Amino acid sequence: MRKPRRPSKRTIQQLGRVTTPTITTVLTKEHGINNAAIRNVWPCSTSACRFAGPAYTIRYLPLREDLKPAQYLDHRDNLITPAVESMPPGCVAVLDANQRNDVGMLGGNLVTRMKARGIAGVVTDGGMRDIPEIAEIGLPVFVTAIAAPPSFTKLMAVDAERPVSCGGVPVYPGDVIVADEEGVVCVPAHLAASVAEIGLAMDHIEGYIQQRLARGEPLEGLYPPSERVRREFAQWVASGEPPI
Amino acid sequence: MRKPRRPSKRTIQQLGRVTTPTITTVLTKEHGINNAAIRNVWPCSTSACRFAGPAYTIRYLPLREDLKPAQYLDHRDNLITPAVESMPPGCVAVLDANQRNDVGMLGGNLVTRMKARGIAGVVTDGGMRDIPEIAEIGLPVFVTAIAAPPSFTKLMAVDAERPVSCGGVPVYPGDVIVADEEGVVCVPAHLAASVAEIGLAMDHIEGYIQQRLARGEPLEGLYPPSERVRREFAQWVASGEPPI
Amino acid sequence: MRKPRRPSKRTIQQLGRVTTPTITTVLTKEHGINNAAIRNVWPCSTSACRFAGPAYTIRYLPLREDLKPAQYLDHRDNLITPAVESMPPGCVAVLDANQRNDVGMLGGNLVTRMKARGIAGVVTDGGMRDIPEIAEIGLPVFVTAIAAPPSFTKLMAVDAERPVSCGGVPVYPGDVIVADEEGVVCVPAHLAASVAEIGLAMDHIEGYIQQRLARGEPLEGLYPPSERVRREFAQWVASGEPPI
Amino acid sequence: MRKPRRPSKRTIQQLGRVTTPTITTVLTKEHGINNAAIRNVWPCSTSACRFAGPAYTIRYLPLREDLKPAQYLDHRDNLITPAVESMPPGCVAVLDANQRNDVGMLGGNLVTRMKARGIAGVVTDGGMRDIPEIAEIGLPVFVTAIAAPPSFTKLMAVDAERPVSCGGVPVYPGDVIVADEEGVVCVPAHLAASVAEIGLAMDHIEGYIQQRLARGEPLEGLYPPSERVRREFAQWVASGEPPI
Amino acid sequence: MRKPRRPSKRTIQQLGRVTTPTITTVLTKEHGINNAAIRNVWPCSTSACRFAGPAYTIRYLPLREDLKPAQYLDHRDNLITPAVESMPPGCVAVLDANQRNDVGMLGGNLVTRMKARGIAGVVTDGGMRDIPEIAEIGLPVFVTAIAAPPSFTKLMAVDAERPVSCGGVPVYPGDVIVADEEGVVCVPAHLAASVAEIGLAMDHIEGYIQQRLARGEPLEGLYPPSERVRREFAQWVASGEPPI
Amino acid sequence: MRKPRRPSKRTIQQLGRVTTPTITTVLTKEHGINNAAIRNVWPCSTSACRFAGPAYTIRYLPLREDLKPAQYLDHRDNLITPAVESMPPGCVAVLDANQRNDVGMLGGNLVTRMKARGIAGVVTDGGMRDIPEIAEIGLPVFVTAIAAPPSFTKLMAVDAERPVSCGGVPVYPGDVIVADEEGVVCVPAHLAASVAEIGLAMDHIEGYIQQRLARGEPLEGLYPPSERVRREFAQWVASGEPPI
Repeated sequence: MRKPRRPSKRTIQQLGRVTTPTITTVLTKEHGINNAAIRNVWPCSTSACRFAGPAYTIRYLPLREDLKPAQYLDHRDNLITPAVESMPPGCVAVLDANQRNDVGMLGGNLVTRMKARGIAGVVTDGGMRDIPEIAEIGLPVFVTAIAAPPSFTKLMAVDAERPVSCGGVPVYPGDVIVADEEGVVCVPAHLAASVAEIGLAMDHIEGYIQQRLARGEPLEGLYPPSERVRREFAQWVASGEPPI
Repeated sequence: MRKPRRPSKRTIQQLGRVTTPTITTVLTKEHGINNAAIRNVWPCSTSACRFAGPAYTIRYLPLREDLKPAQYLDHRDNLITPAVESMPPGCVAVLDANQRNDVGMLGGNLVTRMKARGIAGVVTDGGMRDIPEIAEIGLPVFVTAIAAPPSFTKLMAVDAERPVSCGGVPVYPGDVIVADEEGVVCVPAHLAASVAEIGLAMDHIEGYIQQRLARGEPLEGLYPPSERVRREFAQWVASGEPPI
Repeated sequence: MRKPRRPSKRTIQQLGRVTTPTITTVLTKEHGINNAAIRNVWPCSTSACRFAGPAYTIRYLPLREDLKPAQYLDHRDNLITPAVESMPPGCVAVLDANQRNDVGMLGGNLVTRMKARGIAGVVTDGGMRDIPEIAEIGLPVFVTAIAAPPSFTKLMAVDAERPVSCGGVPVYPGDVIVADEEGVVCVPAHLAASVAEIGLAMDHIEGYIQQRLARGEPLEGLYPPSERVRREFAQWVASGEPPI
Repeated sequence: MRKPRRPSKRTIQQLGRVTTPTITTVLTKEHGINNAAIRNVWPCSTSACRFAGPAYTIRYLPLREDLKPAQYLDHRDNLITPAVESMPPGCVAVLDANQRNDVGMLGGNLVTRMKARGIAGVVTDGGMRDIPEIAEIGLPVFVTAIAAPPSFTKLMAVDAERPVSCGGVPVYPGDVIVADEEGVVCVPAHLAASVAEIGLAMDHIEGYIQQRLARGEPLEGLYPPSERVRREFAQWVASGEPPI
Repeated sequence: MRKPRRPSKRTIQQLGRVTTPTITTVLTKEHGINNAAIRNVWPCSTSACRFAGPAYTIRYLPLREDLKPAQYLDHRDNLITPAVESMPPGCVAVLDANQRNDVGMLGGNLVTRMKARGIAGVVTDGGMRDIPEIAEIGLPVFVTAIAAPPSFTKLMAVDAERPVSCGGVPVYPGDVIVADEEGVVCVPAHLAASVAEIGLAMDHIEGYIQQRLARGEPLEGLYPPSERVRREFAQWVASGEPPI
Repeated sequence: MRKPRRPSKRTIQQLGRVTTPTITTVLTKEHGINNAAIRNVWPCSTSACRFAGPAYTIRYLPLREDLKPAQYLDHRDNLITPAVESMPPGCVAVLDANQRNDVGMLGGNLVTRMKARGIAGVVTDGGMRDIPEIAEIGLPVFVTAIAAPPSFTKLMAVDAERPVSCGGVPVYPGDVIVADEEGVVCVPAHLAASVAEIGLAMDHIEGYIQQRLARGEPLEGLYPPSERVRREFAQWVASGEPPI
């Protein structure tokens, strides 16, 4: 597959302002992509759970016991230290943990270093250790479980910057990973600009509709918006958005 | 099966004052029903998690891709809009999501409308989107997961007001659905009055027993209460319930 | 298997000061034990989640329906009341619930009694009922789920103080069970003293390293610590541990 | 949803001559339907495993214990006897067993009656009892498991001729169910004629290609067939199909 | 629980002549026991799959790595060799493998010894190795999987002749284990005589009914048999059972 | 990780003569490797199920819908045709299907081509289509399921000759894959010679032991063999192996 162009900084910033439910709606309705939300992940800290950035992937496999020592960070063959030290600032680390929730993929020390290096966030379909520390560090980290044991009890890292599966979703290096309170989604690089534009517009009108629903209007014609409601929305926007 | 009489408003109110653990105890000990608690659901908001009301059921199946457009709310064949607009106030919407936790069955707009229409609560064995909004709306909604993607990425609604399975529990339209901090239970319509009466009495004496246990009395004879303890409870009740 | 000597009170206290991630690291790196963390459990109360004590085990099997009445606490054959009344103060009750998350293994009354008797904590790979009450009682209780139904809807107790499986981990009576915010681990009795000693030292130096990482130093040589960093740590400790 | 016209007898016969792998290929490539093969089912008898016919559906839910007696075939409320006696000859009975493989949905007596009534076949995503008898009876029956216990130990029938899920696949009454050695697929009624026509042609040319591959030709251009290979196939067909 | 009397040899022989589907029907309809069929097991050899005998149980737990050497058959602490050498002839070995299908619980050598010692059969909810050899040895062995790795890669034996769970079913030592082509069921010791008697009668009349169904009679009144059909059956039996 | 030397042709041939249970025993007892047997796979044909050869790996991920056309064999970006055409004769194709059993990874045409090119065998932790054809072709193919739908309904190929996971086992290109009636195991390349040598010796003496067990000798001292039995075995071998 030919590599798509990397999305612009502006596109990434825009995507960071679209909610993840809206991103998934745009992907399925406009592009037929139904499998974009990384399953079962939640943020270690509810106050640090938003980011958007290009994926930097690390792939793990089930451990082969004779390769366990090579997983220790001070072994010359370990892949994690060089990966962490070469991630570009602003990227999102995506760790394919084979959906194991009984190992902690990272701990406080590695997350501290990632924060210092300017990583935008982390997502893994595995567990995480040192959760209280991570919550304090303030780097947004999405995980499937709290898990004390180090990753090398069950897994080994095998390569970086290759396509991976994370929470059932295929992630290519450079795809845009977006997170908020409702989870993490992966936007294919070549669709990022389109999704950002449509998504922002959709979030805008849906907020307007919800206010009208809250006042007791029925669904019919209002949600999804009829042509008439779209015109009323446009007028309301043009009028300077007073509290409707 | 012959349809049972609908439980009275009073019975429903009483059931809303019995805890869900007690309801399950009464159902298993008095009626041999072991499978009444909807599995794995939790409330979107901890401050809005209590309700009791008759079930209004909606049934979903795995999506057939050619029927995806009919799931959009503005398609003439969509079942959701008419279902939401015809639910009676006070009912509990029960959505059989086939235990899929990777889709959001409802979003903020539909929940806003349900709140406006006086629905008592919602329970689904699927995920939910727009969770922060739903927490603000204040309608109690029990779900199995936070899930950004719209339901039509994987599911389609097929009918309403038919018996369904929700979280492993059979639910007939009209069964009484009761929720509190510990989850959601389904009380078969014809047993509702009996469960309400026995349950209220059981909660009363168990609170009394717990206070005596907290003061250091041993289990034997006290919990479950012997005849003597039952008499002491009756005296305590008769005495006007001072702090024991 | 010959029974190992019981760990000393001092060892148990020391283990209670080591974090569970560190305990699992020591067990896998020093002793080759990869399976020590009880899976999927979380504390009913975040303010009561730390303990260390010897395991007192209770084993359950799937219910055989004709033995259901013998599970009621007032049946002469029930095993739970005598077990609760004979647990030694300071022990940790370990309930092998066969990983069923649809039953509540204990309720408020039994937990109240366990608290009164000086039990250090409870862990089960099953659900729990009366969670709000348990949070108030203040006894640390780790569970896999909130579940209203009583345990005898699906399970029956068959013996106590035999080896059990809890959350996928083998637990022998007398093993040291340690819990903190990140979960519960089982330390085999004969390894307790060694794990306590190495673990305390490891937590000490890792805290020092994290502070240096937070100031921007790279991983190489610092984490894991080189000989030079170990010397610097020793000097820092010797210097009286000012804020580095 | 508007009901589609029932497929003609001729279409059903043609579908019965297309292999199930080919049917799934046509459904996904021509119609975007990826979810047509009922998962995990196998035939009770390898010599009786082919059929094609319109679906007659029966839906089950988890048992509610007080409704167990109504599942006995001699109870006036039981749904199974009237369903079996009203199935049209040539139909395929589709039993939605909620993917439970620990119950036997039917036994020898009911299958004997279905055979006598001219049913074309049976498929369920549950288990089956009396498997040796069923193999002798000769009615093709696809199941997920051998399971001795009667269905009413865990399930209850709730309705017939409604849309169901079977092995993860949505099945509407009247969809064409096709089975062969490789399993069972569901062809939506309105697509049946198209799938039959394309599928027959595809099976024809693929058989031709395989013979050329067996003689050592490389994949490129041959499989899938280039325009040139399609012409050669046409010539070969025109030539009267001697052994190529 | 008080130990029930052991079933007589005659009862065990009678149970060996009742089919496992019938045994499960009698247990659920007469005794309310729904959970008697060991899930997912199949015989290593289709020609050696029938037995009935009292259970001799062996219980395993997840392996603790430092106890792995004690699992080797030549280690003084291993439990398997003494268990095999002390099983009474005629018993059925029931191995609780924690439903792991990735280990082989026994191999050809141990099964050879069990055959030589007169064991009636083996059932485990785990895998088995040396399946081709076991098929030749002729001892009926029911398993959930073919699995090459020895059990001590994941499991350790902890005790014998204690209650266990096997394939989701509780088994007490001395319960009667019955196997045929359709699987393995566990009959509680105190119910064995009753199940044997009712089951034999039920199998007798059901065979008669099936013949009448095969000739085209409808279900109504015939299956389950009405009083009239029961009388006709009695006459047919009295008449010496010619081919009806 | 440095690449290990490829095992010699002779080592591969020797491994092909060791049974898979014995290989797993040697790997766990001699090398501490517990995870070598690919889970849940079985051969499409019982008469073609033996092979040994170096792994040629192909890796799949969950499908991203916009990349579905690139999976068709006539798309210029498809990876499968070039992979099949470049596999070296004698290798074993290992397809990482993410343990999906609802798709057919290969069909008759591709297997025909692989057979023509001299591939030794195929193993996948996914399903397979065209099973009857594959059984006739005679190439040994191990799968987890019969599954009619083509792989591109759910999966996409992403790379070849990278480390993969297959049935829970890590497989590096060049590892030796060995299959027999009991499944498929992966021998790390650098251990192949050692495993072959020890395994052949172990199979030899175990066959001798089994004959003595069959004659009624007890386990003690015989299995595992004591020094005395080892000497008797050596004498028996030296004597020319008459039927003992």
